[in-house]
Amino acid sequence: MRLGRAFFRDIIANLASAGQGLLDRRAGADTEEEIRALCRALLRSKGEASVVTLARRTLDSFARLDDGGREEFFEFLLGELGAEPPALDAALDAYRSSPEPGTAAALAAAAEPRRQELLRLMNTAPDGTRDILSMRAALLGALAGRPELRPVDDDFVHILRSWFNRGFLELHRIDWRTPALVLEKIIEYEAVHQVLDWEDLRRRLQADRRCFGFFHPALPDEPLIFVEVALCKGLAGSVTELLFGEVDPDVDADTAIFYSISNCQRGLTGISFGNFLIKQVVHELAVEIPGLRRFATLSPIPGFRKWLMREASDGRLVNGRNGREATFEGIETADWPADTAPGEHLKDALMRHCARYLLEAKRGIYPLDPVARFHLRNGARLERINWMGDPSPAGISQSAGMMVNYVYDEGTVVANHEAFVNEGRIAHSRAVAALAGAAAD
Amino acid sequence: MRLGRAFFRDIIANLASAGQGLLDRRAGADTEEEIRALCRALLRSKGEASVVTLARRTLDSFARLDDGGREEFFEFLLGELGAEPPALDAALDAYRSSPEPGTAAALAAAAEPRRQELLRLMNTAPDGTRDILSMRAALLGALAGRPELRPVDDDFVHILRSWFNRGFLELHRIDWRTPALVLEKIIEYEAVHQVLDWEDLRRRLQADRRCFGFFHPALPDEPLIFVEVALCKGLAGSVTELLFGEVDPDVDADTAIFYSISNCQRGLTGISFGNFLIKQVVHELAVEIPGLRRFATLSPIPGFRKWLMREASDGRLVNGRNGREATFEGIETADWPADTAPGEHLKDALMRHCARYLLEAKRGIYPLDPVARFHLRNGARLERINWMGDPSPAGISQSAGMMVNYVYDEGTVVANHEAFVNEGRIAHSRAVAALAGAAAD
Amino acid sequence: MRLGRAFFRDIIANLASAGQGLLDRRAGADTEEEIRALCRALLRSKGEASVVTLARRTLDSFARLDDGGREEFFEFLLGELGAEPPALDAALDAYRSSPEPGTAAALAAAAEPRRQELLRLMNTAPDGTRDILSMRAALLGALAGRPELRPVDDDFVHILRSWFNRGFLELHRIDWRTPALVLEKIIEYEAVHQVLDWEDLRRRLQADRRCFGFFHPALPDEPLIFVEVALCKGLAGSVTELLFGEVDPDVDADTAIFYSISNCQRGLTGISFGNFLIKQVVHELAVEIPGLRRFATLSPIPGFRKWLMREASDGRLVNGRNGREATFEGIETADWPADTAPGEHLKDALMRHCARYLLEAKRGIYPLDPVARFHLRNGARLERINWMGDPSPAGISQSAGMMVNYVYDEGTVVANHEAFVNEGRIAHSRAVAALAGAAAD
Amino acid sequence: MRLGRAFFRDIIANLASAGQGLLDRRAGADTEEEIRALCRALLRSKGEASVVTLARRTLDSFARLDDGGREEFFEFLLGELGAEPPALDAALDAYRSSPEPGTAAALAAAAEPRRQELLRLMNTAPDGTRDILSMRAALLGALAGRPELRPVDDDFVHILRSWFNRGFLELHRIDWRTPALVLEKIIEYEAVHQVLDWEDLRRRLQADRRCFGFFHPALPDEPLIFVEVALCKGLAGSVTELLFGEVDPDVDADTAIFYSISNCQRGLTGISFGNFLIKQVVHELAVEIPGLRRFATLSPIPGFRKWLMREASDGRLVNGRNGREATFEGIETADWPADTAPGEHLKDALMRHCARYLLEAKRGIYPLDPVARFHLRNGARLERINWMGDPSPAGISQSAGMMVNYVYDEGTVVANHEAFVNEGRIAHSRAVAALAGAAAD
Repeated sequence: MRLGRAFFRDIIANLASAGQGLLDRRAGADTEEEIRALCRALLRSKGEASVVTLARRTLDSFARLDDGGREEFFEFLLGELGAEPPALDAALDAYRSSPEPGTAAALAAAAEPRRQELLRLMNTAPDGTRDILSMRAALLGALAGRPELRPVDDDFVHILRSWFNRGFLELHRIDWRTPALVLEKIIEYEAVHQVLDWEDLRRRLQADRRCFGFFHPALPDEPLIFVEVALCKGLAGSVTELLFGEVDPDVDADTAIFYSISNCQRGLTGISFGNFLIKQVVHELAVEIPGLRRFATLSPIPGFRKWLMREASDGRLVNGRNGREATFEGIETADWPADTAPGEHLKDALMRHCARYLLEAKRGIYPLDPVARFHLRNGARLERINWMGDPSPAGISQSAGMMVNYVYDEGTVVANHEAFVNEGRIAHSRAVAALAGAAAD
Repeated sequence: MRLGRAFFRDIIANLASAGQGLLDRRAGADTEEEIRALCRALLRSKGEASVVTLARRTLDSFARLDDGGREEFFEFLLGELGAEPPALDAALDAYRSSPEPGTAAALAAAAEPRRQELLRLMNTAPDGTRDILSMRAALLGALAGRPELRPVDDDFVHILRSWFNRGFLELHRIDWRTPALVLEKIIEYEAVHQVLDWEDLRRRLQADRRCFGFFHPALPDEPLIFVEVALCKGLAGSVTELLFGEVDPDVDADTAIFYSISNCQRGLTGISFGNFLIKQVVHELAVEIPGLRRFATLSPIPGFRKWLMREASDGRLVNGRNGREATFEGIETADWPADTAPGEHLKDALMRHCARYLLEAKRGIYPLDPVARFHLRNGARLERINWMGDPSPAGISQSAGMMVNYVYDEGTVVANHEAFVNEGRIAHSRAVAALAGAAAD
Repeated sequence: MRLGRAFFRDIIANLASAGQGLLDRRAGADTEEEIRALCRALLRSKGEASVVTLARRTLDSFARLDDGGREEFFEFLLGELGAEPPALDAALDAYRSSPEPGTAAALAAAAEPRRQELLRLMNTAPDGTRDILSMRAALLGALAGRPELRPVDDDFVHILRSWFNRGFLELHRIDWRTPALVLEKIIEYEAVHQVLDWEDLRRRLQADRRCFGFFHPALPDEPLIFVEVALCKGLAGSVTELLFGEVDPDVDADTAIFYSISNCQRGLTGISFGNFLIKQVVHELAVEIPGLRRFATLSPIPGFRKWLMREASDGRLVNGRNGREATFEGIETADWPADTAPGEHLKDALMRHCARYLLEAKRGIYPLDPVARFHLRNGARLERINWMGDPSPAGISQSAGMMVNYVYDEGTVVANHEAFVNEGRIAHSRAVAALAGAAAD
Repeated sequence: MRLGRAFFRDIIANLASAGQGLLDRRAGADTEEEIRALCRALLRSKGEASVVTLARRTLDSFARLDDGGREEFFEFLLGELGAEPPALDAALDAYRSSPEPGTAAALAAAAEPRRQELLRLMNTAPDGTRDILSMRAALLGALAGRPELRPVDDDFVHILRSWFNRGFLELHRIDWRTPALVLEKIIEYEAVHQVLDWEDLRRRLQADRRCFGFFHPALPDEPLIFVEVALCKGLAGSVTELLFGEVDPDVDADTAIFYSISNCQRGLTGISFGNFLIKQVVHELAVEIPGLRRFATLSPIPGFRKWLMREASDGRLVNGRNGREATFEGIETADWPADTAPGEHLKDALMRHCARYLLEAKRGIYPLDPVARFHLRNGARLERINWMGDPSPAGISQSAGMMVNYVYDEGTVVANHEAFVNEGRIAHSRAVAALAGAAAD
């Protein structure tokens, strides 16, 4: 029983005729001015009688703005709805003259940009949360050209991080009994392995698959993030094996392969749930299917080939003996174009360099590869590099067709995480170490 | 599918054995120290691998503290988990030397007490929200004796107000189909007219009654606030009429009387939902029962008699002519003791003074009576004063047995609210005006 | 919490090893014999310990039979599982010698074919109802070639009619929130206007459409019958208008057009719910959308052209004056082939004859046209004949492209029904009467 | 979305004014005649337009009858709504002259009492099933004084058995989250150990207890039968142990004790679900709590003391040697009155005779004791006799305060059942055998 729009239509009509509103009527003329007047009215409203109505009008007003109007609005948030300078200055002086918890707290209150409160007030509207996420998405668009809006975005992130706290998220299984309304969003948002159509989706929701998503109660039909899992016998090393193999989940499955994880809400960019999602899904599966012995991913290596080309052009690939350099020259020359699978003669060299890339290529103390960073930070172990794991054009051009398994092992995940975060240490199997060592020979 | 405790038992065991934890082991010795170490570890944790576990441990640790330990903990939040002074000072200098949106935003970030972030981190635990509300309830207990903890409470309020934003609340009807788990809380929390037992509750949930509550998705079995409504023929003026009258809701009911509104969560003290609740319930009822013509309350006047006694002792009651003073002397003398209903000979005088009390007795520009303040601020109109509306001992001693109807009229609620908030103007019926005028004769 | 298959796997293993089973072991050799032994065991089982297990095995056994085996099984039901002759003869004699309620009741009990009890026993299995419907579907297939099986089918109908009593059916709205599992069945079963794909389905579930189905609690994912409704402004006369028009249901819609009604379960052939469904949906829509003034169908006239051809070949179309015969000769000649829309010059004549067909062509006292029979029996009124209402090849070849509106008018539906059922009287508009009269001129 | 009463109010008004109804208007004068006219109209109605309305009116009409009117109505069902004699006679002749499946099926159809079809027609009304159960309950009341109504009751049983087929029942767990509407029925119907009040109920639904019930979809708020289970450590032998012991179900529980099973619907008397319920609950618990090793009952022995007294008065208790007769004389004399617990000096003798009673006292080949019959027929094993298992007055007067454990052991339940049903063989423990043997010494 959420508050319906019809109710607000009545109330708004009522408000309009009340004649005593908080709203500055001159504003009505154009939307850019109107939305500013609405925001001021929202912040000024001491009582709650009209806050929901004003909030709804503000969001509707924003929806009617064109791109230019939206940028103007964000600048208004930046320039006018920060802290109030006089109040801030006063609090600042009070704190300076007597720095104790009370004055510090008063300073914090005075320093908080008023746009944060504005976001909270706008959220009282029915469907407010959804519209605020759209507003953030628009802000991200504007931010590219106007980096000075960053502080406004920081406030969105601050508020959204609080509202989308893990404690408020609900994990739901997504399957063929899920409402079509949600399923069509899975089709739309799948980022790793595109869903072709409803038949393809159906295949991914069959008995040997699992799909789980996080949902927020204020957006019941909108997954925030979802993960797709295949139940396998053994550690699958290729997409084909995953997508077309079939296994009786009650009998044969001993391994759960997380093969796709997709964020759905552009408005939540930078607010991360993936780590929580993977861990809770591991838990759910362990309870549901006691026969599972291993939880692993089948992951891309998006930065490998780019790195390899740079290594090659910088002359750092002459690393072997016994004529290996010769074999390797192919990489620099024309015999392996961008979208063709490398020949078997390159296999050893490429796998060895891939191991080096994952273990040694860094940004600061952490791996250069973003997917590696994500899973290793979560406490996973780099387990295996799979030749021709993804022979699609995208797979070839990003990672020379290879894929990686990261293993989540409940007994070591915390220790791995700590060692990684604090020292950048990468948990990895002997096989990967051997490959990288061979590369260094 | 919320994350179960069993999962965390495992993870915690795992964490303990990991040997590399963020947790300062020396702390384990006693709980007071342990919880501080846990809080520091939570704030220090860069990654998320252990945050849920640490959060759960922190909340469990708090639950084991005795009252003294809790006060110590709150002082720790006050003294140690405010803003970090060096960072704050630096941000402050930067802002002073160049006050623009960027430095202002940085200052706001540096000024935010770290205990706010701690609350967000603790909330990642399963059942975290519930435990944080308990923590706030304990803080309110401690605050009485230690007003210096106020800044800590302000941070709880700040965070809880954000999490319990109206946009996240769900309205549910409560009836005899509601789970017993929720119903027993209605029995426990009803604040205005005590529910005697399950039979009494059942009566209040029959066909001519309605009960609605706000719920938060993170506390699905816990009403936050609920309101009880009786469907009546005409404006009921007494509790008896309300609780024992019977009306066929499909045929006769033309008036919905809101006769009780109860907050349920001590941990949410100061975060108000009543206004939103009443308005949404008005809307729900208007849709469900098109025959309803009027929405009103039957409300106590908790401050009347206390005010009257003070007026009397200050000699301000000699207000009438025609021998009224004589009649009125009874109030100051022994003929109307604290818990006996006043005689009919006092009726006129008491009703007149009650009207005066409601219209004229003020704190600042607003009425002295807290219930009047609440409904008038919401936009209601003071409609009628009812002699012997509540002849219970509590009713006699608070309001000389009278009760008031406030009417919520969709067409005027916004205008009433604005006039009240901005100017303290009280919407009221002619009958009440006449009574107060008579008092002034 | 329905009983799972896993449970029965265990129990069956257990039963098999019990060594004391009711089941005749010799039967195991081949399925045809096995299923008979299982049926006998089911009927013989005094106690319930194994009835669920035996029921499951019987249904599984049936599922393994090929077409020949199934026919044999149905013959077994016919020949062996009717009434027991000696018991029936005894009951018959008893009744003959003393015909009173007791002996009549005993006779009824003895006369009931034992296959009815077998169906009840098989239904105790998990998913039993679903499998019994499949069995009936197989029986209908066999019946075509073996009319002597009719008494077996009569018993299926008798039992299914009792189980699928209207009192046990649940009406559910089907929309874009419905589980995909159910929606794919709507795509599969739509009989009148084929659903092309998921996008087409989505269109049919938008805001200006409604779809409702009857479900039985034992088959929660299986619609039994569903009806599609379009909300329109005015009485729509063509499929195009219906499928591609758009209307704001909150504002404009004054008419609900029932444009498709589809049975889903072949196993329920002959057990009719359409009448109940239409009436309940009328009721639901009237409550949901108070602005609706009219409930009507847009229906095909499946038998018109066939009848017309016969009339023509029998020389009964020479009905007009003023040269109409001439115009009409086209029907008998080559100028209007089977799958081409008739020219405008035939319009008047065809519409007049269509009115005659609907009002005058009879089988017994009822209309020849099956769709007309259905709606008129339900109490609808024949309202309007629409030229080119369905210009699809099927529409042309069945009804010369015309469609009909039948109107369900709450105030007259019972009287219409009674007059129709008892006297064959057809409620119809003046316009249709005029058309038919013109035909007779 | 079941069909609402309001709908029918309209339709009935409509029907009444239609003037062409099937209903014989003369009947309106008095209810006894009216209901007969309604029943005839229901059976006569060829079409469905008014069947739901007529069904609702018939049931409402029955509800208004007094006891005498109801008996008259049942006699009407007996005398007038059996098979139609002419049709039956014709079918009978046809069968006699040519006894084959077709004529047998026609005979069965003609022999079926028309009151069966009447029940099916009445069930189309909203809430029809509930009202038909009430009608049956009334019939059971009338049957006591009028045994000639038995054939009518047989038809109710026949139809209800079909509708309440195990395949249509749903098992639901009942706990403190169950709607109060259902819980109050648990309080009302508990037959074995009375529930004192809501607090008592709450205790029975705590973490170490389970309660499960069968529900029928047409009666969603009405349990048909429910069973209460306590999770224990070891085989509990007394009610006190059960009701007041506490066990951590996750850690300690190794035994589930079924201590109460209650039928809720008088209208379903004679249609048994207990066997199915116990077996499914065993299955549910085995899945939920893998630590459970044993499933047993703690059951009364309702017929023991009555049997013992008869044995004593018939002089059959002089069964011992070594002075046992002397000890036993107490039973026949005044030293053990009806509602006092027997002294310890009687313990051995009473337990031995109780074992004899359970193993040897028979009706036909089955045990005399009805509770023993129920569990042994289900395949349970007679495990242990518990001295002072139920020291309540009822327990003393029925069974000298003793209770019995029957054990359901998945591995032997089918074999036990078969041996019991076919040969009356009672599965029992050595301990019970030894007791009975001692009795025979």
